[in-house]
Amino acid sequence: MYKLRCISCGKIYEPSRDLYTCPHCGERMGTLEIIYDYEKINVKKSDFYPEGDISQFSKILPINDYAVQLKVGGTPLYKFKNILGIKELLIKYDGTNPTASYKDRATAIAVSKAYEFDYDTIYCASTGNAASSLAGLTAPTKLNTYIFVPASAPIAKIAQLYVYGAHVIQIDGTYDEAFDISMEVGKRLNWYSRNSAINPYLLEGKKTGALEVIIQNNFEPPDVVFVGVGDGTVISSIFKGFFDFYNLGLIKKIPKIIGIQAKNADAIIRTFEKGKPYIPTDITSTTIADSISVGKPRDVIKACKYVEKSGGTFLRVSDEEILKAISELARFSGVFGEPAGAASYAGLKKAIELDLVGKDEKICIFVTGNGLKDIKSVEKLIKPTKVKPYLDDVLSFINEVKS
Amino acid sequence: MYKLRCISCGKIYEPSRDLYTCPHCGERMGTLEIIYDYEKINVKKSDFYPEGDISQFSKILPINDYAVQLKVGGTPLYKFKNILGIKELLIKYDGTNPTASYKDRATAIAVSKAYEFDYDTIYCASTGNAASSLAGLTAPTKLNTYIFVPASAPIAKIAQLYVYGAHVIQIDGTYDEAFDISMEVGKRLNWYSRNSAINPYLLEGKKTGALEVIIQNNFEPPDVVFVGVGDGTVISSIFKGFFDFYNLGLIKKIPKIIGIQAKNADAIIRTFEKGKPYIPTDITSTTIADSISVGKPRDVIKACKYVEKSGGTFLRVSDEEILKAISELARFSGVFGEPAGAASYAGLKKAIELDLVGKDEKICIFVTGNGLKDIKSVEKLIKPTKVKPYLDDVLSFINEVKS
Repeated sequence: MYKLRCISCGKIYEPSRDLYTCPHCGERMGTLEIIYDYEKINVKKSDFYPEGDISQFSKILPINDYAVQLKVGGTPLYKFKNILGIKELLIKYDGTNPTASYKDRATAIAVSKAYEFDYDTIYCASTGNAASSLAGLTAPTKLNTYIFVPASAPIAKIAQLYVYGAHVIQIDGTYDEAFDISMEVGKRLNWYSRNSAINPYLLEGKKTGALEVIIQNNFEPPDVVFVGVGDGTVISSIFKGFFDFYNLGLIKKIPKIIGIQAKNADAIIRTFEKGKPYIPTDITSTTIADSISVGKPRDVIKACKYVEKSGGTFLRVSDEEILKAISELARFSGVFGEPAGAASYAGLKKAIELDLVGKDEKICIFVTGNGLKDIKSVEKLIKPTKVKPYLDDVLSFINEVKS
Repeated sequence: MYKLRCISCGKIYEPSRDLYTCPHCGERMGTLEIIYDYEKINVKKSDFYPEGDISQFSKILPINDYAVQLKVGGTPLYKFKNILGIKELLIKYDGTNPTASYKDRATAIAVSKAYEFDYDTIYCASTGNAASSLAGLTAPTKLNTYIFVPASAPIAKIAQLYVYGAHVIQIDGTYDEAFDISMEVGKRLNWYSRNSAINPYLLEGKKTGALEVIIQNNFEPPDVVFVGVGDGTVISSIFKGFFDFYNLGLIKKIPKIIGIQAKNADAIIRTFEKGKPYIPTDITSTTIADSISVGKPRDVIKACKYVEKSGGTFLRVSDEEILKAISELARFSGVFGEPAGAASYAGLKKAIELDLVGKDEKICIFVTGNGLKDIKSVEKLIKPTKVKPYLDDVLSFINEVKS
């Protein structure tokens, strides 16, 4: 039903238990794409429905059996008019997934593959969302779960892992060190890897967010899509989702995709700006948007190639712009995103400033994680005024805040 | 289409803008029920679908127009077999609502009524979930929003309010003081009250959780239902939902309802245990489950009468039992509930100990809030071990945690 193809050399592989990346091009340059014979896939618009979980896409997912019980996907798409002068703004909000982020889409596929390949243990290295997602979705399964986290990850994200009963390995080092040692241990102990980009199937899970945008918008693709970018898998997956539906004849065009990175976590933009052939440029990243704070992005090649193919680009936003975006977004839409999730909205504002989008264009922003994931970053919005419980005190306080 | 009836004296009222509670029986004894002429309501099973938002219930809701855009309701119902020896355990998980708690169901109706009654400002007093719900769901509307919170409420819950742009009045006092002063201010300034129990329409929003359980379980009511209890509105609403569907001929029986309170926040149980006529017994409450930490429950009369009618009862659980329930629940189901949400599972365990439920009975527990709402309470589960990023260190750490 599907094969795997190296993003760099184009060599095609049959799926196999231990194949993660192209042996010729290596882990970084040789991430694999899942390719389908679209002629042989028989799907029509009426096969899909707006609120369904991602198992509804089984025909265009690289799995035999879908093995997850918790409801992944079917998250809301909201439509707003006249925001920032834009006629129609769509918000795809993934904070309602089981562990409150977009990552559940990838994990659902990883869990299904782990069963299919007969692994008893699964692991990942993650700054947070992939980790809590893996811990949460494997909790009701028989899989053993190990999570490698940099010890600096936000408490709220680490606490979840223990609640779900995963084995947590807090690495005294950076995310990149946690990632590298996880790969080494995984290989040694024959565990299944849910590491983003390395595992080619994850992206196929993530693409379902794009498929849902199409279905939930009556098969009308938006003109431009904005999404925050860390290691490059989510943005690549969004292109892939549109690409699949385009090749299956379900949509007539692929939206432009604009990737948003934090100013001091802009490794993929640096690669993109240098132009082809794309060569990874690693940096030391720092941003409040921890879910996209990646210095050594693993899916950089796909991200650059796919964004280019879509006719899109990348933009940088500052941490201040991201923080402001969180509350602006919440105030007009009621959608409370985590910093990495609201980065897409900050990017949209930037794109308008730079005249990159027309006001008549239909825009969609992806808000990939729930604001409750990282409440620390918005605590500074709290004003610490206390009011005595007496009518006069309260009335005069109200007059103050009104004016 | 509907009338209001006093829970104590039975007097019937026509709906009107300023009518909250029975003028004869007062705010505490005189909470109002919404009553329908079931003969005149024409609904059938096929009118409803599992993933729909609560607007699908418009025919049995006391509103003219549903005025909320964010997706409220349609939250998942999960089914597990052989948990605690129970054949079939259903989990209704409301952590995926827009602001991650059950309260969004009530707020959706409050917002709709505020528009209908032509108010420009809406307010509530809340320990947290009702507040963030009101702030979130009114954010995309033209309503002004004021929230009275006790200054001691968890930071994560207060931060959300500011993010959504609500006016927050942090009362230097208890929840009960915040409640009383909010009522005084609301009356003085002609604001619409979203205070639980006082506003009779909220319960009708909350009942939709019970309606969904029925629909999502193919119109088979469970035998026994467990839910955490604070001011008594949620548990009353669950009875009301079953009661409505029973009277409309859509189910053949009403489940027994068992309410769970924290040991030191057991005001409703005290009233229930003293027997009829039910008289409120107020206490000073303390529990980690802040959403059900209520010393002066406003819906105590309804809660006692409805639970009795259902053939159910109330049980106490300790804070330790609640904490343990959070991770036990997460570990078998992947559902991470806030303390008040996991109280239902702690209560189920207690009921099994006491032989109150049979293993062949179909049980449903309501998990009313997302664990991310109160991460503080589970932070003590984190083990602070750090491991150096070297293969030998990690392998020996793994051997330790395995054994």
